[in-house]
Order: sequence, then structure tokens, then C-alpha cells
Amino acid sequence: MNGSRQIDNHGRLRHFLSIEGLNRKLLTDILDAAESFSGVTEQTVKKVPLLRGKTIVNLFFEASTRTRTTFELAAKRLSADILNINITQSSTVKGETLLDTLRNLEAMHVDMFVVRHADSGAAHFIAEHVAPHVSVINAGDGRHAHPTQALLDALTLRDTLGSLDGARIVIVGDAVHSRVAHSNLHALTTLGASVVLTGPPAWVRAFDGWPGVTVEPELEAALHGADAVMALRVQLERAAGSGVPSPAEFIAGWGLTAERLDGACPTAWLMHPGPANEGVEISAELSTAERSLIGRQVENGVPIRMAVLSRVVELGR
Amino acid sequence: MNGSRQIDNHGRLRHFLSIEGLNRKLLTDILDAAESFSGVTEQTVKKVPLLRGKTIVNLFFEASTRTRTTFELAAKRLSADILNINITQSSTVKGETLLDTLRNLEAMHVDMFVVRHADSGAAHFIAEHVAPHVSVINAGDGRHAHPTQALLDALTLRDTLGSLDGARIVIVGDAVHSRVAHSNLHALTTLGASVVLTGPPAWVRAFDGWPGVTVEPELEAALHGADAVMALRVQLERAAGSGVPSPAEFIAGWGLTAERLDGACPTAWLMHPGPANEGVEISAELSTAERSLIGRQVENGVPIRMAVLSRVVELGR
Amino acid sequence: MNGSRQIDNHGRLRHFLSIEGLNRKLLTDILDAAESFSGVTEQTVKKVPLLRGKTIVNLFFEASTRTRTTFELAAKRLSADILNINITQSSTVKGETLLDTLRNLEAMHVDMFVVRHADSGAAHFIAEHVAPHVSVINAGDGRHAHPTQALLDALTLRDTLGSLDGARIVIVGDAVHSRVAHSNLHALTTLGASVVLTGPPAWVRAFDGWPGVTVEPELEAALHGADAVMALRVQLERAAGSGVPSPAEFIAGWGLTAERLDGACPTAWLMHPGPANEGVEISAELSTAERSLIGRQVENGVPIRMAVLSRVVELGR
Repeated sequence: MNGSRQIDNHGRLRHFLSIEGLNRKLLTDILDAAESFSGVTEQTVKKVPLLRGKTIVNLFFEASTRTRTTFELAAKRLSADILNINITQSSTVKGETLLDTLRNLEAMHVDMFVVRHADSGAAHFIAEHVAPHVSVINAGDGRHAHPTQALLDALTLRDTLGSLDGARIVIVGDAVHSRVAHSNLHALTTLGASVVLTGPPAWVRAFDGWPGVTVEPELEAALHGADAVMALRVQLERAAGSGVPSPAEFIAGWGLTAERLDGACPTAWLMHPGPANEGVEISAELSTAERSLIGRQVENGVPIRMAVLSRVVELGR
Repeated sequence: MNGSRQIDNHGRLRHFLSIEGLNRKLLTDILDAAESFSGVTEQTVKKVPLLRGKTIVNLFFEASTRTRTTFELAAKRLSADILNINITQSSTVKGETLLDTLRNLEAMHVDMFVVRHADSGAAHFIAEHVAPHVSVINAGDGRHAHPTQALLDALTLRDTLGSLDGARIVIVGDAVHSRVAHSNLHALTTLGASVVLTGPPAWVRAFDGWPGVTVEPELEAALHGADAVMALRVQLERAAGSGVPSPAEFIAGWGLTAERLDGACPTAWLMHPGPANEGVEISAELSTAERSLIGRQVENGVPIRMAVLSRVVELGR
Repeated sequence: MNGSRQIDNHGRLRHFLSIEGLNRKLLTDILDAAESFSGVTEQTVKKVPLLRGKTIVNLFFEASTRTRTTFELAAKRLSADILNINITQSSTVKGETLLDTLRNLEAMHVDMFVVRHADSGAAHFIAEHVAPHVSVINAGDGRHAHPTQALLDALTLRDTLGSLDGARIVIVGDAVHSRVAHSNLHALTTLGASVVLTGPPAWVRAFDGWPGVTVEPELEAALHGADAVMALRVQLERAAGSGVPSPAEFIAGWGLTAERLDGACPTAWLMHPGPANEGVEISAELSTAERSLIGRQVENGVPIRMAVLSRVVELGR
């Protein structure tokens, strides 16, 4: 995916599928817009009429109450109309296919699909097939990308550190299978940070040689000098074997605790995309520690989605 | 059903249950209103404040994402509040009956029920029992009627042909079990078209002698001179036997292909209420052929529902 | 629960969890506000902009279409945005806990949780753990409380009798297991009524000695002089034994019929929180009898919830 599909011939954001292919100026503009919407969520009347009359469809093929809810709130606070369509529950009894469903929704003059799917590439597939007046937002596709999550992480870091330029961000865990990690690698390096990946070699070595990325399997070495440490969710249900550690091995080598962080990087901030397996990737005490930005990450979810929705509508037409 | 229930003593539309019993003037008024709402769905801000403060309930006893969605969008674009109540999922654990549910919703001062039900007559039953301030819209009941589908078909034909007066519309397939066919027979003949029914005799002979309707089991003879051809959905799950053809027999005799249409009625438009069994009632190529109006049918779904909802509220009070 | 959690240091309503601990002035203010909103539901445009920009979450851990719907309508008629989150259907596949879910929703700057739960104390638990900017409304928790139901009952009685002061209200049935009964005992006595409880001794004797409450197991004696009689729902699924009557025993002793009411209290009004087991706690004819207030109870559901929602937002900040 080279970004050509999401950027139109006039350089505007037609779809929002992946951080890859988006330049620093565009990412910064979205973060700036989100910061201004942040104010919207704190004043008394939270609504702005920016997307009044627009229709947004939450097209969720995979359940995710949190992501669905943030997009729904973002749409409502922009005064758009929103439809929730849960395809797993939906009437496929008559054998209506995905493309038929898209055609039908398009013909109802909807403006945007927010797509969540367990298969990598699903949002791109849909973007390839939608009508010219419809934009697609990727709300997470398989192991591939979760670009709005990466932007809310970037916003949280920029708010906290002042700038991402020259910051050292450590990502810990199963990066190769993580859509959050993929999107963050692109977002953070584009915004000027250097990223250190640490975790079991089978989960991190694929990123060796990426621009702006260092792979360092040893946790202590990776943490040294970190401005922030982002733990990834460990998929406990994934079977061990062929270089994949057991939960106990992972905890021993890469589980984050207050002691480890105090020792290696006492001033580093802690992040986690949630929901965390407490006691595995982070200790229970860490998620509410003073250094934790986890609450701020969630808080930035609605403003980032407001910024993306309004950017795509504004420039994509 | 003679229409007395849906037309009040002042000749106004109290409920919208069936095309039967509605006169040409009223159908034409609804099509005209839908045409003006069509503009609404194409301008930037799609909302009009016509039903602001009204509450509409989508009361679906049978899943249908598409029909539910078009009514939801129609209500939102008219600025009404809409509640989705899926009775199959709903809390009937306490043994609350249908009439109790209706009483409770009425007491909450809702204005309209949009009813979808697998049983023929369900919308009429509900209309017989609602409070005087509530209107009922039939969104499809069993094999009986699907009047908003017929109106969107009529709108599509009127847009395309200029007028239905004297038009020859061929309906192909299992008319006797089809709520779409029943409602279309009433709508198209009332609007001045002549309808030719073709299909296996067991599926069409019941309409012999209907005013404005000709039954012609032979496909080629039926198609001759057609302005438009509407294929019905074949219920593949229905067992063959007692005059009912197998899928192969149906395809051989009445399956629509480009060749057959090119031969018998080269300028005829093609329609299908969707979702189609491609390769059965129509070939895959036909659904996207230039002569296909299928996309326009779906597109007219929201404006027609906007017209019906606003007509019932406006005149039904 | 002494009310300290729901009333803040300035005497304002921070949460709405239980009638217990609320004084007569506050209950009367809410009933007055509901009466003014009652007008809102009868005029043509039902919406008022009072909660525009506020976000309310229906957090239902137990299905209840009716209660969920009344809160949804109340929120929409106050122009608030509302999210429906059904936790039983929700994505707990990733092991997100209740408190995580609350934290995440709070971080999205929601203003209010409307909580329904099968466990007694659930709404209080949530209220103990929410952020300072969030209010909690109890929409029914186990056998403990259903305070909005009690207020709509009180409003119905005040509308009908003119005042609750000195009124004699008889509650019939399984009071000890009923959240409706608990909340009504507090509301009705606080508003000046005297309450007579009648039913099988195992279901009523626990209330002996409550201020303003008389326990009288004999139905005829209890009914004598009643201004209104409120039947409770019998849980037919609860096994008989240890003092608990069989359905037949309950019907023989305490089932309400027109004859019994005509004999003992001919002018008394009849109430039931719904849905009723007709033929058990009340005869089928009674629910639609002239003396029945059941329809009025449902009708007061939306205005009471509008009053509570706007009261909590207005004073709780």
C-alpha cells in the first residue's frame, strides 16, 4: 500500500486507510485539528455543526465496543448522522454479499464508511470498490493497520513531550502481529521520533533495517534513555512454540514493572493501547501509576476521530 | 383489505399498509414528493426539519438491514427521532405480548410504527389496534404487501420512461408468493401501465383476469414489446413439486440473460428488488448491464420513504 | 445507603440511585418538572434543547426494552446524544472489565450513565467509581431499587388524587423481593401517603414497623378505605416452599379481581408496574378497567426520566 489510494490527485485525503504514505504536514494538521476539538469535548455544549447533513456508517465486521463508540461519539459531536451496522448480526440470510451491501449503502447517499474487520486489507478492499462520493476510514484491519489509534498515541505523546522530534519511543512486545505497532511505527517516525522495538526476537526482528527503527531484543538496553514506553497487548491465546515465548517467558523477559522502569528509564511515560493483560505486559500498579498515559490515550480517541472524519469530508470532495 | 383503514374519513392517508385502495392522485403526489426529496439527498446538507420532534419506531420482527436502514436514514433526514426495536432480540423474557409492547410505545407518545413482519397481515393487525394518534407503515408483511418497494419501483420507472401511462411492464417469476409483485401489480396498473406476468403457471395463473394484467407463461411472448422487465427473487429453499419447477427448469424457461432480452425486447430496462440470485432469475452480467435500473431502485429507497413518512404525518393528523 | 452519595455537599443531586435519603422538597420538584415536560410530549414539536451537547450512555447489563426506550426517548427529547451499550452483547472477548469500560467511557467525556443491572447495588458500585464529572442514574438494580419507576407511580397518583398527603395506598404481593416496592415505600411515605402492605406473610412481614407503613396480610382488611391499589409482579418462576405460596394459593388469597375491589374499595384506583401476569396478580379485565391507571403509569415514564436527567445535569455540576 503506497498511499496512492488514500491521497487523491490534488494531494487531498480521499480515504484514511493507513499512516503509510501520509506526510508529516498532513499528520500534524490532523493532530492540530484534534487539539482544537479537544476543547469542544470540554466545554458545556460539545457539538459543532461541521458535518451536519452528512451520513457516516459504522461498518463493523468485528466487535469493538470502544472503537465503535468513539467513532459514534465523534460523528454525533460533529452533528453528522450515524448508522451502526454490525455485519455479523446483519441479515445475510438472503445471501447478500459484501459488495451488494456496499452498493446499497452507497445508493442511499452515505458519505463515509468506518470499517473494522478481522482480515488484513479489508478496508483497502472496500476503498477500492466504493463509489467516488464515498470515503473509507480504517478502524482496524487484521494485523495490518489501526491508523486512528496511532494518531491518538501520537497526540498523547506530543501533548506530553511537547514534540516528537528526536524523542525516543520504545515499543515492547509482539510487534509483528500488531496493527497498533505497524501504524505507530509509521506515525512516530514520520513525526520525527526514533523508535526502539524490543521483545522476543520472533516478534521484532522483521523490523530490522526500517528507517528510524532500532531492534533491541534486550529489554533493559532498549529502555535506556526512553522518553516513553508503549506496551503492546500479548495475545495469550496464541500457542507457544517456534520461537514464540510462553506467557511466563514473556513476563520474565519483557513484562513491564515499576522496578524495571524506575531502574532503566525513571522519567519515561508509559502507554498501552488497551485493554491490557495486567500482570503480563504491564503490572497492575503501572496502569494507574503517575507515569501512565493510558487514560489520556483513551481521552484523545474522540478528538482524533473527529479530526479524521472532518478532514476526509472536507478535503475528499 | 379495501383501503378504508388506511384512508381516513377526510380522504387522508392515516396508515400506509398496502397500495390496494390508493388512487392515482395520491400515488402520484407521493412520487412527486419523493422526487423533490431526491434533491435533498444530493445537496450538501441532507436534512430538512419537516419531522423535527416526531418519534418514529422501526418495529422489525424480521431482520432486513436494507429496509431498516432506508427507513432510519429517511427519518433522520427529515429530522425525526428514530428508535430501532428488533423484537426477536427484545426482552420478551417477561412474557410481554405484542399488544402490551404497542400500548407501552404509544403511551410514550411515538408518532409512527414502521412494521416488518414475516406474517401476512401483521401491519394491518397492528394498525387495527394502535391508538388514534399513531400511524403504521408497512415495511413488508409475509407474502402480502411491500408498498414502499412498489412505489420506489414506480418512481424508478417514471423517472426512466417519463410516464407509466401505457407502458408495458413484464414481471417474471414467483408472483403468487411475492409481496413485491402484489404491491407492484396494484401500483403499476393504478398508474396506467399494463402488466404482463410470466413464469411457471403455478406461480402466475392466479392473476388471470386481474384488471390491467395479462398472464403469459411463455417468456419470449411476454417479453415482446416490453418497456421494462422486473425479475422477482426465486426462493431457492422452497421445495420443488406440485407444479413448482426445479431451479434448473426455472432457469431454462424464465432465467433472464442478455441474449434473451436482446432478442425479445432489446430496449427494455431491467429491474430486480434485490438481493438477486445471480445465475438464477438474472445472469450476473445483467445486474450491471446498461439496461439495469437496479442501482436506481436502491437509490430511490430513501426518498420514497421520506415521502411516505412525511405524507402520513402531514395528512394523518 | 443513606443518600450521602447521591446528594453532594451543596445539597444537590449528584447521582440518582435510590429514593431513600431524598427529601420531600426534592421529590416534589422532580414531579413538578415532569409535569411540565408532560406538556412537551403533547405539543407538536417534542424537543427542548436543555441537554444539547450532553452525552448519555444507556449501560444495560440486563435487557429491558421498555425502560431502555423511555430513557432513550427522554434523552432525545432533551436534545442529548445517547449511546446504547448492551454489555451482555458487548465485546468482552478481550477481557475488558467493568471498571475498564467505565474508565474508557468517562475518558470520552460522557456526562451520565443510566445503569440497569440484575445485581442489587450495581448502580451504587458504579457511582462509587465514576469520575467527578459523571452522574449515575439507577434504572433498576436487582431487588434493591427502581427509583424512576417509583417517581412515575407517584406522579400518576398525584395527578389522579390531587395530592399524596394522607392518601392510603395498598401494595399487594411480593414486596420483599421487589425493587419497585422498595422504591415506592420510600417515595410514597416521603410524599405524605400511608402505605398498607398485603400479601403472603413471608413477602410482607419484613416491613413491619417501617414508618408510614402498615403490614396487613389479609387482603380485604388491607383494601378497606384504599385510595389506590398497586399490584406487584409475581415471579412465577420462583419455587414454592418455606412459606412461599403456590400460584393457586396466591390467586386465592391476593389475586385482584373486579369483584374484590368493588366489594372492599369501590372507588380505589388500580396500578401495576407491568408487565402483568394477567389472571395471577390482576384479572385480565382489570388492566383495562376504568379504574386502571396502568396506561397513565407508562405515559409518565418519559416525562419522569426527562425530569431526572435534566435535574442531575443541572444541579450535579
